[in-house]
Amino acid sequence: MDLSAEWITGFVDGEGCFHVGIYTRPDMESGYQVLPEFTVVQHERDAKVLYALKAHFGCGVVRTNHGRRLAYRVRGHKHLLERVIPFFEKHQLKTTKRRDFLKFRRVVRLMAGGEHLTARGVERIRTIAGQMNRGRPE
Amino acid sequence: MDLSAEWITGFVDGEGCFHVGIYTRPDMESGYQVLPEFTVVQHERDAKVLYALKAHFGCGVVRTNHGRRLAYRVRGHKHLLERVIPFFEKHQLKTTKRRDFLKFRRVVRLMAGGEHLTARGVERIRTIAGQMNRGRPE
Repeated sequence: MDLSAEWITGFVDGEGCFHVGIYTRPDMESGYQVLPEFTVVQHERDAKVLYALKAHFGCGVVRTNHGRRLAYRVRGHKHLLERVIPFFEKHQLKTTKRRDFLKFRRVVRLMAGGEHLTARGVERIRTIAGQMNRGRPE
Repeated sequence: MDLSAEWITGFVDGEGCFHVGIYTRPDMESGYQVLPEFTVVQHERDAKVLYALKAHFGCGVVRTNHGRRLAYRVRGHKHLLERVIPFFEKHQLKTTKRRDFLKFRRVVRLMAGGEHLTARGVERIRTIAGQMNRGRPE
């Protein structure tokens, strides 16, 4: 299945999620692990669309999400920085999901600069992450 | 806001719904009213996307759905037959929502032939409608 860039942008405007998870990890120097991820969830009946997204971005994995739902997921920093983020810079999201994308990009860039490795940097990231995906779902 | 045909197709693959409602109406000859509708629901924060869809299709309305959600909705048979259906014939949906679209198209075409005006025709439409939107949401 071939997907056009514009179709992907529309589909992600509907179904995509840019998320930054922050997890307690006493074994890490900052005390936290910061985990940015781009996901698209679908019922397993539409698995082929998720695999087509994976093929298009050339990175990420398709995994069981919960029940009969699957998620296409990209977590790798290099893949987020070099593939996912440039794609949505070039092909602008039309909904307010674009705001989440811009915050997500900011976090991933801060991480590229090593900010997530210090407690202070994690707090900065936490502030940005706290402004994302507000009021969803409703 | 300008929307491309491919973006719309992707967005509708995610957020659109093709639905055929069948309601008891003792005052009508067949005993039923058949109401096909194409809808796209969004939180009010993305109202402008719904108005852009309305402008693109040149038909339909944007109305409160429930809570702070709005729906772009097309119910008019002429608009469904001449605008919505030809659009998705030209720009194919990629998910299994395409199956719903094809059944929806069949119902709208049967209605154009007056099938919904007889009890027998309504039963035929009911069988098709019963095969639509199965397993959604989950």
